[in-house]
Amino acid sequence: MPKSNKNQPKRKKVTYLDYASSALVAEANPGGIHEIGMKEKNKLENARAAIAQILGAHSYEIIFTSGATEANNLAILGLINNFKKPHIVTTNIEHASVLEVCRHLEETKQAEVTYVPVEKNGIVDPRKIKKALKKNTVLVSVMYANNEIGTIQPIMEIAREVRHYKKSISHKQKAVSYPIFHTDATQVINYLPIKVEKLGVDLMSFNGAKIYGPKGVGILYVKKNTPIKKIMFGGNQEFGLRPGTENVTLALGIAKALQDVEKIKEKEVKRLTKLRDYFLRTLDVRLSGVGHPTKIIFNGDLKNRLPNNINITIPGIPSDLLVIELSARGIMAAAKSACKSGDGKASHVIEAINKDIKDTDGSLRFSLGRSTTKKDIEYTVKSLSEILQKLKRWYN
Amino acid sequence: MPKSNKNQPKRKKVTYLDYASSALVAEANPGGIHEIGMKEKNKLENARAAIAQILGAHSYEIIFTSGATEANNLAILGLINNFKKPHIVTTNIEHASVLEVCRHLEETKQAEVTYVPVEKNGIVDPRKIKKALKKNTVLVSVMYANNEIGTIQPIMEIAREVRHYKKSISHKQKAVSYPIFHTDATQVINYLPIKVEKLGVDLMSFNGAKIYGPKGVGILYVKKNTPIKKIMFGGNQEFGLRPGTENVTLALGIAKALQDVEKIKEKEVKRLTKLRDYFLRTLDVRLSGVGHPTKIIFNGDLKNRLPNNINITIPGIPSDLLVIELSARGIMAAAKSACKSGDGKASHVIEAINKDIKDTDGSLRFSLGRSTTKKDIEYTVKSLSEILQKLKRWYN
Repeated sequence: MPKSNKNQPKRKKVTYLDYASSALVAEANPGGIHEIGMKEKNKLENARAAIAQILGAHSYEIIFTSGATEANNLAILGLINNFKKPHIVTTNIEHASVLEVCRHLEETKQAEVTYVPVEKNGIVDPRKIKKALKKNTVLVSVMYANNEIGTIQPIMEIAREVRHYKKSISHKQKAVSYPIFHTDATQVINYLPIKVEKLGVDLMSFNGAKIYGPKGVGILYVKKNTPIKKIMFGGNQEFGLRPGTENVTLALGIAKALQDVEKIKEKEVKRLTKLRDYFLRTLDVRLSGVGHPTKIIFNGDLKNRLPNNINITIPGIPSDLLVIELSARGIMAAAKSACKSGDGKASHVIEAINKDIKDTDGSLRFSLGRSTTKKDIEYTVKSLSEILQKLKRWYN
Repeated sequence: MPKSNKNQPKRKKVTYLDYASSALVAEANPGGIHEIGMKEKNKLENARAAIAQILGAHSYEIIFTSGATEANNLAILGLINNFKKPHIVTTNIEHASVLEVCRHLEETKQAEVTYVPVEKNGIVDPRKIKKALKKNTVLVSVMYANNEIGTIQPIMEIAREVRHYKKSISHKQKAVSYPIFHTDATQVINYLPIKVEKLGVDLMSFNGAKIYGPKGVGILYVKKNTPIKKIMFGGNQEFGLRPGTENVTLALGIAKALQDVEKIKEKEVKRLTKLRDYFLRTLDVRLSGVGHPTKIIFNGDLKNRLPNNINITIPGIPSDLLVIELSARGIMAAAKSACKSGDGKASHVIEAINKDIKDTDGSLRFSLGRSTTKKDIEYTVKSLSEILQKLKRWYN
């Protein structure tokens, strides 16, 4: 094809006449076969390749979605639609975007679901996952770490149990064997190993907003040969798994964010672990002496947890009230899971690990990040101590 | 709740400890009940109210999605899931995100679909829509204007036929009566009236990318009492219709884009209509004289079309080749529908209006926009004329 032509007038400006595809030249439709469309397609594929490399995956195993919620929905609904009477194994502390999909499938009789209860420390026993597996189990979905209490699930051990089970039921080598293993890795990308092969997962979801990247974009890793089908219909974008004009800006954003995460991961894990443990220690010491009758409850295992997560319950004091008091002092924390805090329900995670905690008490989550310093922790503990003093009337 | 406290240390800096909700303070989770979360929630609701005002709708009737494809999927799948043996009436030139949903529902026997054929000018006859309605018709879905050939559908007339039909089958006043009327308005927002009540629609979809706003965000207008159910599962955001942390940045972006569109709509329609008609005239005159044996085919009605759309077929010359030749001259146009151009299929729209056009010829779409000038048109016609001269061997 001719790239230049001596007889034709020189024009530096691009004549963009594809407004019906995308009104912004700078964000032209990567489905277009004109030069700008091709360039956008290249950028998109570079972003995909960069993400694949970090996960130790192939480019064609990376699907861009609108977020982790859509990625989780695609993973579960997209797989389940293949079967007549499928069975799913999951835990009782998954994120709403996994739990609510499971509940919907149960309600509409599209699947049977076993919710394996986690132990008191908020961690699931891999042997209990194995025990729950049945002939018609097509999917095991266990989150990598919990969004409320930060406990890390033994994903590699669960993957091993799933593999052993597969071998025990069939000696033949097949392109696809069941159950498929999915993990919602949204909370861990900043801190834990995420090479998919080493983890032993077939499907893995996460998003941009939790890794200092853009909102509005998520990733579903789909291991080669995993029989996922699309759950929305339209164009053939994303290898036929996710229709809609691709969002190159967001794809580049999440790829860059992931690359940045990898660069500082080791250092940040060390720094935040120290900070978290300092937070836990001082909370314990400082708040025990302010006249509160019962001890603070620390929710979730204290060791096998994300380096940036602290989750506490102060018996007798509603966590919502604490968030508002803290907020008035410039401290932004969360009561229960932020994704659900709009609906006023009690946390299903706290319920799962400690039935003694009252719904009204709830739980208070502090999640640290790149800008968090020791001073922030000191100020927060000091403020919390003052708030407890002030709120004595609530529990006296 | 205390907003200030004299005894507490003054700190200007915010102590953000909600990284697990959103890693970026500037884009905190609007589900959080802390101050920043509340502010984000306010911004989101302001964006929603601004959009509602422009559509003449209520705030609670505006649902943010990830794009028009998701909005169309939610409109159709979200309604259809309520029924046992539903029937849908649509046309044969809808966008893939409507057609493919319908085909999926047919294939999985979830719905019966009638595809009303458009006339040769690319416009559907409202009486043919009415004729297709049946007792179990729960949905009529007709696009406001076509994305390939730009023909404008008589939405108000179709709405009237649907209303008359409703009255003819039931004299009782009900909160909900069927069929529900949906329109994909993605292509028209920049140019046509979009007051939902005047149009008479129950559901209307569009996105940000086509109105000079951000990619990655779409809107579904859902008229009060329309029994839509969510198609993805998770949190209770967007009135329970669309889970996932809300994207305030994109919501603000599409609201601002829509406001800007309204400000210049009248003027742009006049300007572009002139430009389009000049384009059509000069194309006809200039290209008829360059030795091409058959006349250019203008696809779609020449009057009832979007002010920014020109769609032609040059018999014997593949439109893909023309796009590449134009692109080499700095002109970005589209062959067939950009959303589908990746899959190599012939355009179902051209097929619907003119069976004589060969698959290999396809169609060439020029869509104009805010930066398009008369000079662009002149340069494009000149270039096209040169390309036809050069490509004589293709058709001689």
